[in-house]
Amino acid sequence: MATRMASTQDDLRRLNRARLLRHLHERGSARRSDLVAVSGLNRSTVGVLVSELSDAGLVVEAAGAPGQVGRPSLLVAPVQTSAVVVAFDLRVDCTIVALVGLGGHELWRREQSHKRAKYTPASAVKNIVSLTRQALDQAPNDAVWVGIGIGVPGVVDHDDGLVRQAPNLGWSDVPLGDLVRSALVEEFGEAPYLAIGNDADLGAVAEHVRGVGADHSNLIFLSGEVGIGGGVIIDGRPMLGAGGFGGEVGHMVVHPGGSACRCGARGCWETEIGSDALVRAVDRANGMETIEEVIAAAMAGEARARAAVDQAGEWLGLGLANLVNLFNPEVIVLGGHLRLLLPLVEAQVREQVSHALSAARDQVRLEIPALDADSTLIGASEIAFDRLLADPITVVTEPYHATAS
Amino acid sequence: MATRMASTQDDLRRLNRARLLRHLHERGSARRSDLVAVSGLNRSTVGVLVSELSDAGLVVEAAGAPGQVGRPSLLVAPVQTSAVVVAFDLRVDCTIVALVGLGGHELWRREQSHKRAKYTPASAVKNIVSLTRQALDQAPNDAVWVGIGIGVPGVVDHDDGLVRQAPNLGWSDVPLGDLVRSALVEEFGEAPYLAIGNDADLGAVAEHVRGVGADHSNLIFLSGEVGIGGGVIIDGRPMLGAGGFGGEVGHMVVHPGGSACRCGARGCWETEIGSDALVRAVDRANGMETIEEVIAAAMAGEARARAAVDQAGEWLGLGLANLVNLFNPEVIVLGGHLRLLLPLVEAQVREQVSHALSAARDQVRLEIPALDADSTLIGASEIAFDRLLADPITVVTEPYHATAS
Repeated sequence: MATRMASTQDDLRRLNRARLLRHLHERGSARRSDLVAVSGLNRSTVGVLVSELSDAGLVVEAAGAPGQVGRPSLLVAPVQTSAVVVAFDLRVDCTIVALVGLGGHELWRREQSHKRAKYTPASAVKNIVSLTRQALDQAPNDAVWVGIGIGVPGVVDHDDGLVRQAPNLGWSDVPLGDLVRSALVEEFGEAPYLAIGNDADLGAVAEHVRGVGADHSNLIFLSGEVGIGGGVIIDGRPMLGAGGFGGEVGHMVVHPGGSACRCGARGCWETEIGSDALVRAVDRANGMETIEEVIAAAMAGEARARAAVDQAGEWLGLGLANLVNLFNPEVIVLGGHLRLLLPLVEAQVREQVSHALSAARDQVRLEIPALDADSTLIGASEIAFDRLLADPITVVTEPYHATAS
Repeated sequence: MATRMASTQDDLRRLNRARLLRHLHERGSARRSDLVAVSGLNRSTVGVLVSELSDAGLVVEAAGAPGQVGRPSLLVAPVQTSAVVVAFDLRVDCTIVALVGLGGHELWRREQSHKRAKYTPASAVKNIVSLTRQALDQAPNDAVWVGIGIGVPGVVDHDDGLVRQAPNLGWSDVPLGDLVRSALVEEFGEAPYLAIGNDADLGAVAEHVRGVGADHSNLIFLSGEVGIGGGVIIDGRPMLGAGGFGGEVGHMVVHPGGSACRCGARGCWETEIGSDALVRAVDRANGMETIEEVIAAAMAGEARARAAVDQAGEWLGLGLANLVNLFNPEVIVLGGHLRLLLPLVEAQVREQVSHALSAARDQVRLEIPALDADSTLIGASEIAFDRLLADPITVVTEPYHATAS
C-alpha cells in the first residue's frame, strides 16, 4: 500500500479538484466537455469542481472560439494572475530568476552574472532574497505567492533542499533549503512553499510538461554544462531513487581508465563530453576557451577542434546507447552545449546508438530542448506550483500575498 | 492526467477492496485494526470491504494469537485455496512450473530439463500446456484459476507477450502470448488472464514483494545467467520504459572495444561478467565447462580461474557503480551465478563501488536473493495474480475453475 491514493470521499474530491487545476495549468484552457473527457468524471461533478476553483479565483469561464456548429462554447481558463511563484536557475556563472503565473506564464525575468569560483552559499542566498523581492514587486495585485523553486547544478536532497554535492559550484553539504527559508522569513515575515531540485531533473520536468516530451511518459533530459546532468521521467513521473539522487548520468563510466573526474572515478561520461573536457582537448594556445569557440572552430574545419568534437561524438553516442538500453525512453533531450554538439556528430551518434537493442532503439528519438536554455528555470517554476496543484483551495486561503510585503 | 486514479465512488470502492486484498496477499493475515492503520480507511469501511471479500471466499476471519491483553483477536487471512495461478520460469536449459495459491503459497512444483539449443517456441508452448494441465490436477477443489504467468530470458512486450529478442534461447519476434493463449483455449476451452515478463523484471517484483527488498521502494535485481538481465523497481513500481524494454543492464557497455556481444556491440556488461564469458576466459582444456566449476576452481586457488574471477569482479563493480549513480537504489540483488561470484570478489567490488557519488553510495546495499533461485518463478506468480488483485470480486465470479477442466 505504498502508493498514495484517495481513501475517503474528501480525499477523492480534493484529488479530483487538484487534477482539474493541474490539467488547466499544464495544458491551458479547456471546455467543460474536454474536462469531462480527460478526467473520466461526470458532467455535474466537473461543474461543481470548476465552480469551487472559480470561487477561489483560480479559474475563470469565458466565451472561447466558436465551436463547429458556430456557437461559442465556454472555456475554463486558469487565471494567470491569481497565483504566482518565483523560480530560480542557479548556474555556475549566473543566476536566472523569473516570476511565473498560474498556467506557466512568465510575467517577469532577470539574469545576473557572477564570478564562477566566487558564488558562495551565503552570496547565493543573499541574491535569492533580493531577486525574490524584485520579482514580487512585479506581481499583480492580489496574486497569491504560492511557492519558490530553485534549480541547482548538483546532487540535492528533495525533502529538505540539502545540496549534498555541487562540485562545479564548489559546494558540499550546503543546507540551502534551511538557509533560504530563514532568510525569507527574516525578509518577509514568513516563507512560502519551497522546493529545490537538481538542474537536470527540473529540465526533465519542464520538457515533459511543456516541451518536446509533452506527449511522452518516458523521457531523459541531459544538461550539458561543465558537468553532464541527467533528469529521468519514467511513466510520467520523475525518477528520484531512494534519496532523490538518481539520474547522475554524468558519472556513468564510459571509458575505464580515461580522464580523472572530480568525483574520484576515471572516464566518467562528463570527463569525455563535458564542456571543460572539450575545451581541454583543444590546444588552449589556439585561443579557444569556451565550448562555443571549440564548436565554431570544428565547424570551420580546424583540425584539433574537429578531432576533439569527433571523439566526443563517439562517447556521446556510446552513453546514449547505454541510456536507451537501461531506460527505454521515448525521447532523450540534449540540453546545454550538447544541443550544439549533436548536429556535428550525428554520424558517430547514429553508429553508436545502432548498437542498442532494437526493441528499445526503435522507440527513441533524440531531440534538442523545445524550451531552449530555459528548461531548468521552467522546471523550477513547476515544482514551486506543486503544493498549490496538490490542494488548490487550501493553499490559496493562506496568507502569502505577493503584494502584502 | 496520465495516472489512473479513482474517479467515481464505485471506482473508489473497487480500488479499496483491491488494496486490502493485495495487502493480505503480500503481507499475510492482519487484524482489522491493522488494515485500518495501513489503508487510512475508517473501521466501518474496512468492515464492509472485508465482508465482501469474505463472501467471495477470498478471505476468512479466524481467531489469531492472543493480543497484549490476553484476548485472542480476529485475524483476516487470505484463503490460499480460493484462487490459484500457474507460474513458469522458462530458462535456457529447463522449465520450472509451480501452482501458487492466494497469499503466495506454493502448492506444487515441477522442474523439467531440456536441451539448450533445442527449445523451440513450439516445444515450449506444448510444454506449457502439458505442465499447466499437471499443475491444475493438483489444484484444490473449487479453487478459481485466475491467471498464468511466464518469465522469459529476453526482451518481452508486456502488452501482448511478444518476445522481441531472447538471444540465449535463439528466439526473436515470437508471439508467445498469442501462441500460449491459443493452445490453452484448445486444451481447456478458454484461457485465463495471461501475463508474460522478462525474467529479471519478475525477479525484481518477487524480491520487492517477498524478498530482500520488501521494505524498500527502489531495487534492482540482476539475473546472472548466460546473459545478465536487470529488473528495476522505482518508487515501488516496476520501471518498464516506453515499451517495457527498460533495465537491459546486460547491454550497458562497460568495456569499449571489449569482447563482441550477441547484440552487436562490444564490451557489454554480460560479455564481461556473464557465465559464458567466465567459462570462456578459463582454458576449457582444464575441463571446466560450467560457471560452478570455474568458481570452485577459483576458490581452490587455480590460477586461470582466479584471474578470470578477479577480472570479472572489476567489471562487476564498475557496472554496479554505474547503476548506483543512475538509479540511486536502496538494494541491488545479485541473482544467478552473481550470488556465487560476489563473495569471491568483494574487494574489487567495494573498490569500484566506492567511486559512485557518495550520496547514492551511502544508501545502497548489495544483497543475494532471499528467494534463492526462485525469484523469477515467484515473480511470474505475482503478475499472474494482478488481475484478481485489481478487481477481486469480478474476477472470482468468472468461470476458470481449476477443477472444471
